[in-house]
Amino acid sequence: MGAGTKFREILASKGLVEAMAAHSPLSAMLAAEAGFDAIWASGFELSAMYGVPDVSIVSMTQHLDMTRAMAERSGLPVVADIDTGFGNAINVLHAVDQYERAGVAAIVMEDKSFPKVTSLIAGGRQDMVRVEEFQGKIEAACAARRDRDLVIVARTEALIAGLGQDEALRRARAYEQAGADLILVHSKQKTPDEIEAFVAAWDGKAPIALVPTAYPQMTVARVRELGKIGLLIWGNHAIRASVRAMRETFARIRAEGGIHGVESSIASVDEVFDLQGMRKVKDDEKRFLR
Amino acid sequence: MGAGTKFREILASKGLVEAMAAHSPLSAMLAAEAGFDAIWASGFELSAMYGVPDVSIVSMTQHLDMTRAMAERSGLPVVADIDTGFGNAINVLHAVDQYERAGVAAIVMEDKSFPKVTSLIAGGRQDMVRVEEFQGKIEAACAARRDRDLVIVARTEALIAGLGQDEALRRARAYEQAGADLILVHSKQKTPDEIEAFVAAWDGKAPIALVPTAYPQMTVARVRELGKIGLLIWGNHAIRASVRAMRETFARIRAEGGIHGVESSIASVDEVFDLQGMRKVKDDEKRFLR
Amino acid sequence: MGAGTKFREILASKGLVEAMAAHSPLSAMLAAEAGFDAIWASGFELSAMYGVPDVSIVSMTQHLDMTRAMAERSGLPVVADIDTGFGNAINVLHAVDQYERAGVAAIVMEDKSFPKVTSLIAGGRQDMVRVEEFQGKIEAACAARRDRDLVIVARTEALIAGLGQDEALRRARAYEQAGADLILVHSKQKTPDEIEAFVAAWDGKAPIALVPTAYPQMTVARVRELGKIGLLIWGNHAIRASVRAMRETFARIRAEGGIHGVESSIASVDEVFDLQGMRKVKDDEKRFLR
Amino acid sequence: MGAGTKFREILASKGLVEAMAAHSPLSAMLAAEAGFDAIWASGFELSAMYGVPDVSIVSMTQHLDMTRAMAERSGLPVVADIDTGFGNAINVLHAVDQYERAGVAAIVMEDKSFPKVTSLIAGGRQDMVRVEEFQGKIEAACAARRDRDLVIVARTEALIAGLGQDEALRRARAYEQAGADLILVHSKQKTPDEIEAFVAAWDGKAPIALVPTAYPQMTVARVRELGKIGLLIWGNHAIRASVRAMRETFARIRAEGGIHGVESSIASVDEVFDLQGMRKVKDDEKRFLR
Repeated sequence: MGAGTKFREILASKGLVEAMAAHSPLSAMLAAEAGFDAIWASGFELSAMYGVPDVSIVSMTQHLDMTRAMAERSGLPVVADIDTGFGNAINVLHAVDQYERAGVAAIVMEDKSFPKVTSLIAGGRQDMVRVEEFQGKIEAACAARRDRDLVIVARTEALIAGLGQDEALRRARAYEQAGADLILVHSKQKTPDEIEAFVAAWDGKAPIALVPTAYPQMTVARVRELGKIGLLIWGNHAIRASVRAMRETFARIRAEGGIHGVESSIASVDEVFDLQGMRKVKDDEKRFLR
Repeated sequence: MGAGTKFREILASKGLVEAMAAHSPLSAMLAAEAGFDAIWASGFELSAMYGVPDVSIVSMTQHLDMTRAMAERSGLPVVADIDTGFGNAINVLHAVDQYERAGVAAIVMEDKSFPKVTSLIAGGRQDMVRVEEFQGKIEAACAARRDRDLVIVARTEALIAGLGQDEALRRARAYEQAGADLILVHSKQKTPDEIEAFVAAWDGKAPIALVPTAYPQMTVARVRELGKIGLLIWGNHAIRASVRAMRETFARIRAEGGIHGVESSIASVDEVFDLQGMRKVKDDEKRFLR
Repeated sequence: MGAGTKFREILASKGLVEAMAAHSPLSAMLAAEAGFDAIWASGFELSAMYGVPDVSIVSMTQHLDMTRAMAERSGLPVVADIDTGFGNAINVLHAVDQYERAGVAAIVMEDKSFPKVTSLIAGGRQDMVRVEEFQGKIEAACAARRDRDLVIVARTEALIAGLGQDEALRRARAYEQAGADLILVHSKQKTPDEIEAFVAAWDGKAPIALVPTAYPQMTVARVRELGKIGLLIWGNHAIRASVRAMRETFARIRAEGGIHGVESSIASVDEVFDLQGMRKVKDDEKRFLR
Repeated sequence: MGAGTKFREILASKGLVEAMAAHSPLSAMLAAEAGFDAIWASGFELSAMYGVPDVSIVSMTQHLDMTRAMAERSGLPVVADIDTGFGNAINVLHAVDQYERAGVAAIVMEDKSFPKVTSLIAGGRQDMVRVEEFQGKIEAACAARRDRDLVIVARTEALIAGLGQDEALRRARAYEQAGADLILVHSKQKTPDEIEAFVAAWDGKAPIALVPTAYPQMTVARVRELGKIGLLIWGNHAIRASVRAMRETFARIRAEGGIHGVESSIASVDEVFDLQGMRKVKDDEKRFLR
């Protein structure tokens, strides 16, 4: 079964796909272990991992390679964050071909112009492409997939750009018409009001996708109450957890002049061995080394 | 000034280089922020990040690319963990050429046979190469460097392999004779006794390097007391801190049905923006976008 | 249909798979255009393309990435030259997993020790692994494949190493017993005699694979006459053709002080556009750019 | 001495830098062997090598990695073709930082919008950015270099886009004012007239760069006669020579049913061994293997 089909089956059976952000095979494996349904191959997380701003600096090669490895190692359906599609509709044709081959279940493409600026930054440039242009990109994405079940998610940044609900709805409808399977609508309001109003007003058939980073009080339960929502993405919690933990651990080692104090606050070496599959290595050595 | 020269100057001025493990530019940047002197481009951490065992699976290309990015983004001298040198002395010539071009300050090469098995695993295979063979590899490393200040660290796994202190000393002396600038001696004893005995017995001129993962009670202060030690490596605390933090954060999000609860336990999005250099992006946009 | 199945069908229907070496998607596409059945993702050619010796210097990542691109762009079954399997049986498990995911039809693994030295070099070191060790690697390769049709080719260098026909036969039988689907036997004799004698003496069921670089008088017709041969690999003619052509073209441009003279001796820019698919780009622009 | 300084010294001493296109370390090494002064790390050649159209599909990572390897292996100053700079001025800051670290002597950036379409295609879309926008990108490139000698070449596609000589001159002057060290003016006219007229009319101090693919009758001698020209790029002759040679060789092997006929028309295996440095491997084995 293809990854897209797997994604659609989870959506059909559970009514909601809950995806956790990841930036590495390790973080994707930990998300799988925790019971999330899918992996969000986040451009923001990968940019942060490389220590560069999330403004179309990380290349498609870098993101694609990490996405492939996350799909392989986690076993979960991967939702690939391909930003603006790396250029125009011609780039989208190439990107969708490559991400599908890399084994993803879904791609999410947003209606900002290339190069993008990360959505949640205060006062950031948020340039949009015309509706017709983005419809062409969605049609390209749909045309490029070989497996009809590969999920195409159109993301509108209309609310992020301050264009209001009417424009967001207009774009969402146009994108559904162009072939999008889901509509991701992003918001940087500190409360869910803007998003809840959008969901209430949404009259399309395509399920909605949300990334409630800015309004963390939005729960899974509330999402289910609202209805219409098919994909819930926790957008950056893997990297944010790692940053805090490394910062605190490093500071403490510096302050204490050694690692004795942090030993119980961090994973043991054996835990890491288990994640890496060292038991299987030992079994395989017995089986195959002569 | 080359990175090797920078490393030697820190060693000369502070008497000890304290290196923190990293597996990504982000973790290397956080180590720099915390005040460590150098980055340990750890094979174990990178293997874990890719979700594979530390048994010569991660390729030189993968390690080299990440090492280059860590050197570029952290600004610290990088000590590259090149395991066994990716093969024999011919591979070492190629590897040292490539790592030097990637901007590292030092390379650490160990006297196990390729493919290696991670040192701290219980009951693991720990095959050593002959002393003469490893001397050839050290000579190759020294011959391959263009900057005479690139630091060549020879790592003996004699204690890890259970061969005892005499063999460890014999090997250390042979490696110093072959040109090694420092001698790393590794131990998996749960206390520092074995290592302290080695240090006491060491009669060479090359400073010693230690990786006290197994014996975390070894402090910076104790290392300075012992003398003879030039490089202290905290070998895997970046990835171990990250694993624990992601595991706990993911579990809590699952248990609480949302991200509201973890919000204060993880870095804020703005903290990540700062690490990524979003302020500079805004300044640069004002300066160069027209 | 998987690539391995496709390979087996060609073998069944034509009785012989004729593979041309390639070192890039472009060369693989030209081989497809010429009508060869399969692509030989040659380690020698890729090493030469990178300007490094064929002695286990090119990493698995480099070879895997190029192999994946060749499979994607050529559409032909790819026979991946994985040399010694990048280490021991544990590395083989990892490699076969990765190459199968990259879409190859077959892998060829040889019974030299890692790191290898290229086979046809005069007076080169040619160290072999023990038969039992290599059987373990073949069993690992067979165990690692998810598609039972992925073709595992065991390559013996017994003749290359000067060990004679009896040893070559002994190894070939042992490798077939361990699960190899085909047996590649390599020779550096300037005539086909050694190989023909081996073929005549071969009493196994597994078809033989040949790479007649050293004895170019071996034709397809003769191979079919001999029988027992399932795979014929032209091992390095893409890179050798390119080297000669670039050398002559460059020399002539230098000698003539310009490019006017070589214009008719090289492909036109339009020919390259056609290979790159510029016509499809124009169609796609009309269809998707708005 | 940095690569940029080396480039400037060749320009100063010879009055003209003659660069040959390459798409791999091997082709770059052959260009060095032939006596060219520099390597043109061509986006068109690399796109062709990957079998994809030259329309901003090959990623910066792919081009950067190959460019680094070409600089390392050829020893010549490399002129990097970075197309439009991979986006806006922010992308340019990142790109120049990375290419300088990769060891290039010069970068060439063109005033088309991202994603670009290859210049010489008949009837292709050729969208230009505004002069002010491109000035910002040149200023970004100049600001990003750490070595003041890194050469920044501004390429105008005004003639390619059919905007005429006045616009080409206006842009060239604006780009020189913004800091460009050289001005590349591209033309797809079948004769040198358009370019010669531009050169005659050019009143700036910056030397001109030419890529006479479309008008191959332009010789080195004529370029010297014209004066004002500092960089002459043979833009795609490595890949075009390779395509013709592989096509003919493959067709002949197919037609003749074997490789016997092509043997004398292609480089020998020993020639390839020499290029790969197999002699040095043998020496190094004697010196370092024990």
